[in-house]
Amino acid sequence: MSPEQLVQAANWVPVVGIAGLLFALITYLMIKRRDPGDELMRKLAGLVHDGSMVFLRKEYVILAVFIALVFVALFSFINWQTAVAYLSGAACSMLAGFFGMKSATRSAVRTTKAARDSGIGTALEIAFNGGSVMGMSVGSLGVLGVGLIMVIFSRDARIISGFAMGASSIALFARVGGGIFTKSADVGADLVGKVEAGIPEDDPRNPAVIADNVGDNVGDIAGMGADLFESYVGSIIATIAIGATLGAMAINYMALPLLMAGIGLVASMISVFSIRWFKGINPQTALRLVTFLGGGLFVIGAYFVCQWLTGGWEMFAAVTSGLVAGIIIGLLTEYYTSGPPTKKVAENSETGTATLIISGFATGLESVALPLFAICLAIFFSFQAGEMAFQGGGLYAIALAAVGMLSTIGITMSVDAYGPIADNAGGVAEMSGAGPQVRAITDKLDSLGNTTAAMGKGFAIGSAALTALALFSAYSRTVAMEMGSVAFAIDVTSANVVIGVLIGAVVAYLLASTTMKSVGKAAFKMVNEVRRQFREIKGIMEGEAEPDYKRCVDIATSAALWEMIVPGVMAVAAPLLVGFLIGPDALGGLLAGATVTGVTLAILMANSGAVWDNAKKYIEEGHLGGKGSDNHKAAVVGDTVGDPFKDTSGPSMNILIKLMSIVSLVFAPLIVKYAPLIKQFFTG
Amino acid sequence: MSPEQLVQAANWVPVVGIAGLLFALITYLMIKRRDPGDELMRKLAGLVHDGSMVFLRKEYVILAVFIALVFVALFSFINWQTAVAYLSGAACSMLAGFFGMKSATRSAVRTTKAARDSGIGTALEIAFNGGSVMGMSVGSLGVLGVGLIMVIFSRDARIISGFAMGASSIALFARVGGGIFTKSADVGADLVGKVEAGIPEDDPRNPAVIADNVGDNVGDIAGMGADLFESYVGSIIATIAIGATLGAMAINYMALPLLMAGIGLVASMISVFSIRWFKGINPQTALRLVTFLGGGLFVIGAYFVCQWLTGGWEMFAAVTSGLVAGIIIGLLTEYYTSGPPTKKVAENSETGTATLIISGFATGLESVALPLFAICLAIFFSFQAGEMAFQGGGLYAIALAAVGMLSTIGITMSVDAYGPIADNAGGVAEMSGAGPQVRAITDKLDSLGNTTAAMGKGFAIGSAALTALALFSAYSRTVAMEMGSVAFAIDVTSANVVIGVLIGAVVAYLLASTTMKSVGKAAFKMVNEVRRQFREIKGIMEGEAEPDYKRCVDIATSAALWEMIVPGVMAVAAPLLVGFLIGPDALGGLLAGATVTGVTLAILMANSGAVWDNAKKYIEEGHLGGKGSDNHKAAVVGDTVGDPFKDTSGPSMNILIKLMSIVSLVFAPLIVKYAPLIKQFFTG
Repeated sequence: MSPEQLVQAANWVPVVGIAGLLFALITYLMIKRRDPGDELMRKLAGLVHDGSMVFLRKEYVILAVFIALVFVALFSFINWQTAVAYLSGAACSMLAGFFGMKSATRSAVRTTKAARDSGIGTALEIAFNGGSVMGMSVGSLGVLGVGLIMVIFSRDARIISGFAMGASSIALFARVGGGIFTKSADVGADLVGKVEAGIPEDDPRNPAVIADNVGDNVGDIAGMGADLFESYVGSIIATIAIGATLGAMAINYMALPLLMAGIGLVASMISVFSIRWFKGINPQTALRLVTFLGGGLFVIGAYFVCQWLTGGWEMFAAVTSGLVAGIIIGLLTEYYTSGPPTKKVAENSETGTATLIISGFATGLESVALPLFAICLAIFFSFQAGEMAFQGGGLYAIALAAVGMLSTIGITMSVDAYGPIADNAGGVAEMSGAGPQVRAITDKLDSLGNTTAAMGKGFAIGSAALTALALFSAYSRTVAMEMGSVAFAIDVTSANVVIGVLIGAVVAYLLASTTMKSVGKAAFKMVNEVRRQFREIKGIMEGEAEPDYKRCVDIATSAALWEMIVPGVMAVAAPLLVGFLIGPDALGGLLAGATVTGVTLAILMANSGAVWDNAKKYIEEGHLGGKGSDNHKAAVVGDTVGDPFKDTSGPSMNILIKLMSIVSLVFAPLIVKYAPLIKQFFTG
Repeated sequence: MSPEQLVQAANWVPVVGIAGLLFALITYLMIKRRDPGDELMRKLAGLVHDGSMVFLRKEYVILAVFIALVFVALFSFINWQTAVAYLSGAACSMLAGFFGMKSATRSAVRTTKAARDSGIGTALEIAFNGGSVMGMSVGSLGVLGVGLIMVIFSRDARIISGFAMGASSIALFARVGGGIFTKSADVGADLVGKVEAGIPEDDPRNPAVIADNVGDNVGDIAGMGADLFESYVGSIIATIAIGATLGAMAINYMALPLLMAGIGLVASMISVFSIRWFKGINPQTALRLVTFLGGGLFVIGAYFVCQWLTGGWEMFAAVTSGLVAGIIIGLLTEYYTSGPPTKKVAENSETGTATLIISGFATGLESVALPLFAICLAIFFSFQAGEMAFQGGGLYAIALAAVGMLSTIGITMSVDAYGPIADNAGGVAEMSGAGPQVRAITDKLDSLGNTTAAMGKGFAIGSAALTALALFSAYSRTVAMEMGSVAFAIDVTSANVVIGVLIGAVVAYLLASTTMKSVGKAAFKMVNEVRRQFREIKGIMEGEAEPDYKRCVDIATSAALWEMIVPGVMAVAAPLLVGFLIGPDALGGLLAGATVTGVTLAILMANSGAVWDNAKKYIEEGHLGGKGSDNHKAAVVGDTVGDPFKDTSGPSMNILIKLMSIVSLVFAPLIVKYAPLIKQFFTG
């Protein structure tokens, strides 16, 4: 094909998005037609489903206020088009979350049913297909949204950034709020239920049990989905924004990321569909195969499109370097959080809780190195390739590497979302008293889900880092354009930039601290509510009266969303304050400082949390004394310490670095214009 | 005075250093004349003294090899003058450590004796004077060494940097090795003695008890002293190096930092001497008063010298902003690690170990913010003042702020070193079975020592950060000069710099991880040795045979110094590899990345460790159930987790960021020359 034809084709990429949505819809309807099991199972699943919807509804009410405020701000200070793009980005992210949650809650119970009656192959297929609704929705809505905004607003990069900002706003609430929700419900259910009342985990008499199960969906489905959706559209839009500054080549280079996303979506669809051919084999191998199939198909398509559009191999090299880095980071995360390092940490339980925690933390610190090296290599190779393509093409190529890493989001997110569905399926099996054979199957699916979840977390951080870098480059290019100069240097030998870097680090640390404390506060409210229900509702313990599950869900929801306000305001206000009051160079420093501290903290917290979690599971498998031993008690403490690390504070770093970058990108023109005036006002 | 006279006067600043050394010598001799107590006390003190000397001897043997290697490298690749300066810097730092250790071990036992026979006033005076030998040695040797090198090598800034690199090399071994030593001895003594053999802490039957006490001196006296010595000479030398690039004004601006240091030393001498006037009042107030007296005297002197030399107030403002920031950081550290936040963390022990650890960690994360803001303000004000003085004076002024922060090192280090002496005095009292009144006094002095130690740690981090920034500026100025251009931008929008920033963060995380793991490995060796002695030496437990204390000291020493090799090589090799292989811009990025991640990690680890430590002490004072309660057990775990955080990994960050900056500064000319050739070689 000729470059002109491909640029035309980019206008039709939204159609691929519509196809993907139809694919997701059909998958969902096929899942719904499956047998949801006996009455008890259906009731339990219904409670989790309703709880998830309560969370979404409450979240969306608060979000409506937040979005309205930002909409008015964008409308008044930037332009109506950006405001509309913002609204669309928010709407697409919300829709993806809604579809994903619906599908996940429906699939979990049917997975349990299939595990009982049809064996592991069918159970895997249902759980995976359930996750693929989320995966395909994220990919399709991303391509559809960005593609339509591109077409409607005739390729104005500044307007398109609004779409990414909308996605970021939802991600903030879904990921950070979801992280607080899931851990407060978890801790609340455990502290009162297990410790005080002495009833087992996942016991339906515990008023917080449904909130706990809802939390898995809220955090790992909706939260993770919004996070990856943000990275996905963020990387595409950053690449478009940098492409827009390339003069005569702009049209081609603005089309390229969209084409890559479209190819990735098609590749994902095929590979998601292919799961049915791998039903007979080992589930872990099956998931690996579909993932590699998606990546392989994408690479083939990307090769030809890059060749045709740019006439060279360089951009293809950039795309591939990102894709490979993403896979490497996932594998490294798997190695650290379930390989030999985790076993070594578990062995440290022999000398007590303290040594277990120290060695887990040390492992978390160590695990930062190799993923960052992988990112360095991706940056290095894509930059070199880009500079070979044309002078100044290096920055563009780095952004394109981020697109490459995220291109097959349809399949990677499907595998990610499979994890919590398998987890919930195990929960339903436990709660409904299914036999040991059924639990053996769900346990196997669940333990595989832990591995995919760990890889998914690593991938989420890596892609957030590369996306933040891409947005950062887009920011600096935009500032340069607004200033009418060729480039805008953010020089760390300047005092303003150093101050910005330090403030960026402060914001990351403060967000980590506030989210960690929020879990404590929200859990405290949950504990009081569960205690109140045990006290006031007679007959709960005897199984004669039903606890008020909804109230627990409400409390976790309100607490989580309420606790969101401070971090949310901080993340949006910090870049604006620094940008307007100190200047665009200091703001660049802030983004750099927040990104480097945020990414390292995110890996440290996610991995040390996962290491403690899996060390506990390793002991529970019967090693080192097994369940109930002193070693196990030490590991349980480590696991609890790790909960807010890996599920709340760590992931919130991903959002922070992207949100601050996108806010800076959207407001860059205003900052360039008004920062000098404000300075003049203060210095007289 | 005229500027010319002041420049002349700067040549005579070394004389102030000699006076300071005499002052320290007299103080030491006066302490030695005091009564060292009864036979048992003398014997115990002698063991600690001998153990400390064993550590120093072994350390110096390994150091000799290391220093010889670097000396040859500098001699061959740079020039003989830099090599000689390097040797002098190393020698001065070693001497300061030697004097300080001698004095500390002699003073501790005499403090106990005074507590028994003369009351708290005299005890405080001896402990403080003992610490002042270290404080005055650090200040005097710094001023003497830098001043002489300046005079001998006729103000060649590049040669003088060698002196700072020598100080850095010693700091690496003293601080990082010392940190591993002290915690391995501590953990080893506790695990076998307290837990397995069931003998109390500080029991002379425990073979590791002397190593444990030696550890306090090694870590908090020699380690802290070498750290601050490095910051002190580093900040002076960075300012001289930047001053050297100021053309016609160079002579004046190279003299200024030396004059400031000289005034600070005189002010410190007077305030150290003044402790005898405050004997009657509350010890805490007394230490505050002498510190503020030193600061006040310095400010007065600095005002006049800055006026006379530069004809304006601007440089005085820069110096003062650094001094004030240092005080604020100390006070903030005190607030977080012994104020209300620590009590809140202690209260979290009510819900178990996990919540205590989480809330301590969250507090540590939070405590990063305000100290960094204080540094931002110091940078902001000094930069503005510097730019008002003359165009391009901002960077110089930031470096001068670092000198200001460290100018009164003589008195601040004296107060710091007081802490471990009071701690050891309490140990001697405990071991020698002194009565409750004596212990009440030593406990009071010790608890005050904890506060000063916390403030000292905060100050050490803050000054390391500002010194690293000053060295970073000096590096960029040197690169610019070598390239023959006006300025050298380190632009974080360039791919090389981003890669450098990420590698810098990786180095900081890897150092934190390796040092943390080293404590575990060294402690394991110590545990085995203590077990062996209990098994093989008959009669230890009955008090009939003496344990082989020296062997435990040897083991901790060897293990600590052996474990130093990997971090040491990493810290020196990383900047050279990045500089030569990727380029001077990437190296700038590396320094920026390592500084921002290193400083934040250092504050996080130092403060969360101190919070856990003090939460335990708070409970031991009788709150929340007191000693032996479940809350106390939870707090003990927190304290153990915090040990390597606050005494090993955290402080090693200080060294890393300064050492990498100084290595870069010294090798900058070579890197500018050869990096392009190496690149050419690889790209053909």
